[in-house]
Amino acid sequence: MQPQSGPIAILAGSGRFPELLADTLRGAGRACRILAFRGFADSTLRRRADAAVDLLDVKRVLACLREWAPSAVTLAGGVHRPKPSAVLNAFSILRNRRELAELMGRGDDQLLRGVVELLEEQGHSVVGARDLAPELLASPGRQGAHEPTADDLRAVQLGMRLLTDISAYDIGQGVVVADERVVAIEGPEGTDRMLARVRGLRRSWSLSPAPRAGVLVKMPKKGQDLRIDLPAVGPRTFVRAAKAGLRGVAVASGVTLVLDREETVRTADRLGLFLLGVDGLGVGVGGDGA
Amino acid sequence: MQPQSGPIAILAGSGRFPELLADTLRGAGRACRILAFRGFADSTLRRRADAAVDLLDVKRVLACLREWAPSAVTLAGGVHRPKPSAVLNAFSILRNRRELAELMGRGDDQLLRGVVELLEEQGHSVVGARDLAPELLASPGRQGAHEPTADDLRAVQLGMRLLTDISAYDIGQGVVVADERVVAIEGPEGTDRMLARVRGLRRSWSLSPAPRAGVLVKMPKKGQDLRIDLPAVGPRTFVRAAKAGLRGVAVASGVTLVLDREETVRTADRLGLFLLGVDGLGVGVGGDGA
Repeated sequence: MQPQSGPIAILAGSGRFPELLADTLRGAGRACRILAFRGFADSTLRRRADAAVDLLDVKRVLACLREWAPSAVTLAGGVHRPKPSAVLNAFSILRNRRELAELMGRGDDQLLRGVVELLEEQGHSVVGARDLAPELLASPGRQGAHEPTADDLRAVQLGMRLLTDISAYDIGQGVVVADERVVAIEGPEGTDRMLARVRGLRRSWSLSPAPRAGVLVKMPKKGQDLRIDLPAVGPRTFVRAAKAGLRGVAVASGVTLVLDREETVRTADRLGLFLLGVDGLGVGVGGDGA
Repeated sequence: MQPQSGPIAILAGSGRFPELLADTLRGAGRACRILAFRGFADSTLRRRADAAVDLLDVKRVLACLREWAPSAVTLAGGVHRPKPSAVLNAFSILRNRRELAELMGRGDDQLLRGVVELLEEQGHSVVGARDLAPELLASPGRQGAHEPTADDLRAVQLGMRLLTDISAYDIGQGVVVADERVVAIEGPEGTDRMLARVRGLRRSWSLSPAPRAGVLVKMPKKGQDLRIDLPAVGPRTFVRAAKAGLRGVAVASGVTLVLDREETVRTADRLGLFLLGVDGLGVGVGGDGA
């Protein structure tokens, strides 16, 4: 079922990552097939996709994979908690309704692990972006024109320590730290909404115009399966971070996706923010044995 | 400066607590004087207050206290991070602008500790609600008509464990846990806004009408000074918790304020939520030596 010569099957959720991954693979001369999840995948991607399937239509997903006989399967983009419409449209023959409901009650990490397990049970090899396109991951060190200060670096360290300490709770790959103060911990609402919250907090506290303060820190949860759900930053992250009055963004290098690197660095530079890849010390290694 | 016979000086911030405390003290035949912080204290309280002062007008605060010669000083209600207007109106002769700015960059806990230190330097005895009116604190056990299930209790335990683990970071006295999942960690935005966030998350995920799930857990930070900034719940907490689809609220007993106990329990009962006082195991004890 997994000839080495088969294509890479991309199970594509939301965001720009699935398309970037497909472009990167094709640019490297590797065949790929895209299965777009309805309600998640961008419309541009859906037009390119070889199939569009409801997220919970496990039967169709597996039928596609059987037909494509891929050498490996990868999950790309947001395939988080299904929306009501997705749940209503779908039904699984391989997991019953109760099992699905249980899975949905857990953290995103647990949910995605369930999907990986199911694919592996069916004989597929599941790989991550780190295996397929490491060039999409954050490099170590400063990426753009702006340098973090010693204060910024202390805030980054505090954030990484906190994220490590809470990683057992399956919540959040992101945190905002300003000076010695943790201002927000990311929950299932995601980075964008967390940054909006920080923006609101600053507005209610600060002198206007307040000097910039604070950093966004993103890293995977310790022990998380690094084939799935890697933290990601992109141009939009920097636009939101600037609006929240932050000074920069630090990400765990090698285990954080940078969506459209050039445009991301250009945006960071333009807005005066730093982008720092920090060695993901203490970052757990997932099921891909890397 | 601190005759045993002097009144209790209440430095009053926002919320209902300062007024409840004053009523309780007067009901017990103890004299008290209220210093209301402008921009924070409720208008009803300001009318009752003996003085109204800008939060950062340390000089006037100390002058009032000198005149009143209180037997003890207590900080009641929200005196969080000053708003721009408060900062602009104020200036300290005892702390310079840089020191104030540094203090404001830290967590609320640090900020309030700074205030307590300053008062103690000036020879005042600072006490907390636990010393003055323990009847305002949460009792252990179930408070209203509704009983938490075994699942609810597991969620409460998970929440308490998480709050204990992050308490070194001076963020959050509150968390929302649904099933085995941490849904939100409270930051400086406060409990109300955290609950609004949870409400939004539920809306985007769930089948409608979704069964109730999740608990709000509140407890002080380990090692925090329990004379200041105790977590609090009141009727509004339950209204918000119900809107967020939660099943109940658990608080650390003896170290959480219940604002208007009767009305709080009535509201919980009416909305079908439980209120549980949990022995604050692992809860740190502050500077009052209790």
